[in-house]
Parts: sequence; structure tokens; C-alpha cells
Amino acid sequence: MSADTLFNQQAQKHPYYPLDLSLPHYISSSTETPQLLIALAGLATAIIITGFLLSRGQRSFIDRFAFVWFFLCFFTHVGLEGYYVWNNKTLAGKRSFLADIWREYSLSDSRYLSSETCTLSLEAITAVFDGPMCLVVLFSMLRANFATRHLAQLTTSIAQLYGVVMYFSTSFLQNCDSTHPHPYYFWVYFLSMNLPWIIIPSILIVHSWNAITCRINAANQQFKQE
Amino acid sequence: MSADTLFNQQAQKHPYYPLDLSLPHYISSSTETPQLLIALAGLATAIIITGFLLSRGQRSFIDRFAFVWFFLCFFTHVGLEGYYVWNNKTLAGKRSFLADIWREYSLSDSRYLSSETCTLSLEAITAVFDGPMCLVVLFSMLRANFATRHLAQLTTSIAQLYGVVMYFSTSFLQNCDSTHPHPYYFWVYFLSMNLPWIIIPSILIVHSWNAITCRINAANQQFKQE
Repeated sequence: MSADTLFNQQAQKHPYYPLDLSLPHYISSSTETPQLLIALAGLATAIIITGFLLSRGQRSFIDRFAFVWFFLCFFTHVGLEGYYVWNNKTLAGKRSFLADIWREYSLSDSRYLSSETCTLSLEAITAVFDGPMCLVVLFSMLRANFATRHLAQLTTSIAQLYGVVMYFSTSFLQNCDSTHPHPYYFWVYFLSMNLPWIIIPSILIVHSWNAITCRINAANQQFKQE
Repeated sequence: MSADTLFNQQAQKHPYYPLDLSLPHYISSSTETPQLLIALAGLATAIIITGFLLSRGQRSFIDRFAFVWFFLCFFTHVGLEGYYVWNNKTLAGKRSFLADIWREYSLSDSRYLSSETCTLSLEAITAVFDGPMCLVVLFSMLRANFATRHLAQLTTSIAQLYGVVMYFSTSFLQNCDSTHPHPYYFWVYFLSMNLPWIIIPSILIVHSWNAITCRINAANQQFKQE
């Protein structure tokens, strides 16, 4: 018996779609799904509370909301998605909390575990560009630097929106054939977990566009009156 | 002999890579490559000259350059890339000047003719979003609307840059296996024809970012002095 055959026999059958997807290094997670989701929700809540406390200096509701959002996005992009990009080739066979998270999410999109080039490129841009840009927004908010804050908020939100539109578009053009057919994975993981990155960046793009326009127009008005 | 076999025998062998790519509806172009390239260069020159004449009202070199650039981009995104998106499924077998252009370009990237989902999604965003946004930049430049012009220039340039980074990244992650191995196709079509959409949007992002920042900071300074 060759080493390859032995390896294939030892490799676990995986639960991902399409069923013929080759994931020879796959191992199942050691943590149960409810525990994983509770741990992830706990982590997100801790980040949101910390962000909320750090946002005390922000005056309006939208500013405070934006601060918490970019604080959460920073950890998501650099921590969670950065971990994915760094480990994408070996992720299916890794033993770690974040690998368990990605194995669970991949039920809604196996392109993550197979390092599909479009998904990997989108995640790389998100981790390397969007993540650090969140920090630029946060620091410029703390320093009350109006121009940098809104330019960085606009730039980051456009990049986030572009990424999710590409992500959804390529998946739908492939008839979502990398998604597990159980509706839970499509509606809860695939749609609901990505939809915030369509809605909130859209709102923040309009917010920054208007804020910059108003400030410049007010200045023009002021100059004209003098 | 079945209809399918007959069809496959009639279908022309194609010149694209990878060699086993299925393009059953492929027909070769009726125009020779030099004639195609001369016609395309002529068209681009006519657009650039028209854009240059329309840009007379712009004061600085960079503004005039940006005007001509977005004028050219509008026709490229909506005309050339819009035509691709609209006809992508049947393009390999179409008889038209633009289909000939795309068959020629596809030698450097056959993902166009096979309607690969990432390329198609990128082109769809470019045609539907970037193209009309070029018009927003152009009209706001003609109306000397500083805020809208720079916000639209920033937004469009970020989207263009994101698109080309995705395009290059996915191709390199696939070891450029959709590119004809002759260096001409890689260096002239694939690299040189896309590189302007890395370099110029990068310059215009910095330009608009600085322009908006300077205008807002000048206004802040003015308010403080009063």
C-alpha cells in the first residue's frame, strides 16, 4: 500500500460542498458548534464593550457607532481574516480556536478551505489594507482630525463594500455550489454574517461624503461672504 | 454521428491557454491583429483629443490630465468593458469589432472568454459603477464643484485600483495559467494594458486626499482666526 493511499484512507471524509472537493488534510474540529459560537459571540461582545468605552469622547450617535464599528472591524480584519490569509493552505487540518471557527464558517462557503484564489485575494486585501485603515479611522477620531477621519472612513468603507459585493457576486455566479444545502448555513452564516458589511459601509460612505461636502461648502460660503 | 460530435468537430480549435479550455462556440476573428490594434489606438487617440479639447476650462496640469483620463475611462468602462459584460457568454463566437478586440486580449487572459466568475464580477462592477462614476467626476469638474469632483475622483480611483489589484492577484495565484506563454501577451497585453489602472488611480487618490485635506484645514484655520 503506497503512502498516498494510506494517507487518503486516514484522511477524514469532510462535510463540505461540493462533495467532491478535495481536502486531504481535513480534520474535524475538537470543539462543538454551540461552544464555538458562544465563544465567538463572547469575544465580539468584549470587543464591542471595549470599543464603546473608548468611544466616550465622540459626540454624536453616528460617531460613537462608527468608532465601535471600526474597532470591531479592526479585530475581525486583522485577527480573524488575517489568521485565515496567513494559514489558508493548512487551515483545514489545524488545531486552534480560529481554525475551528473557519472550519465552521466554511460550511457556508468551502472556498475558504480550498484557498480559492478570488476568496483568498479578497481576504488578503481585507486583512492587509482594510484592517490597518480601521486604525487610521480610530486614531483620527480620537485626535478629532475631521479630514483624515472622514477620508479614511470613506476609503475603508468603499473597500469593504467592494469586497463583499465581489464575494456575493462570485458565489451567486457559481450558483452557491460551495454552500452546504441546509438553509441554516446559507441564511445565517453566508448571508447574515456578511450583510452588515454591505449595510454599514453604505451608510458610512454617505455619512462621510455628506460630512466632507458640508464642511467644504460651508467654508466656500464663508469665503464668499468675506 | 451524434449532433454533439458533429458540433465539436465543426468547432474550431482555439489558441487560448490552458489548452484544454472548452470554448465550443469559438470562431477566429475576421480582422488581422495589426489592423485591430491600429483601429483601437485610433479610437483611443480620438477620445483623448476630444477629452483634451473639452478640458480647456481646467486650470492646472493635473486637473486637465484627470479630465482626459476619466473621459477615456468612461468609454473604456462603459463601452469596451460594458460590451464584454453584456455579451460574455457568447463573445467567443461573435462577429464584431469589439468581439475581435476581446478575442485578441483574451490571449493574455482566457478567463474573459470562459466567463470566469471573478473576472466577470470585476468587469461588471467596473462597467456598472466605475463607468458612470467617471461621468460624475467629469460633470463636477465642468461645473467646478470641488467637493463632488474630489469625492467622486477618490471613490472611482479606489474602485479602479481595487479591481486591478484583484485582477492581478487572482491571476498570479493561478500561476497565470490563463495567459498565452508568448512573452508578448504577458508583457504587452496583460501587464502594460492594466498597469495604468494601478499607477494613475494611485496618483489621483493621493491628489484628491490632499486636495480635500488642504481645503478643510484651510477652512479650520480661517474659522480659528475669526
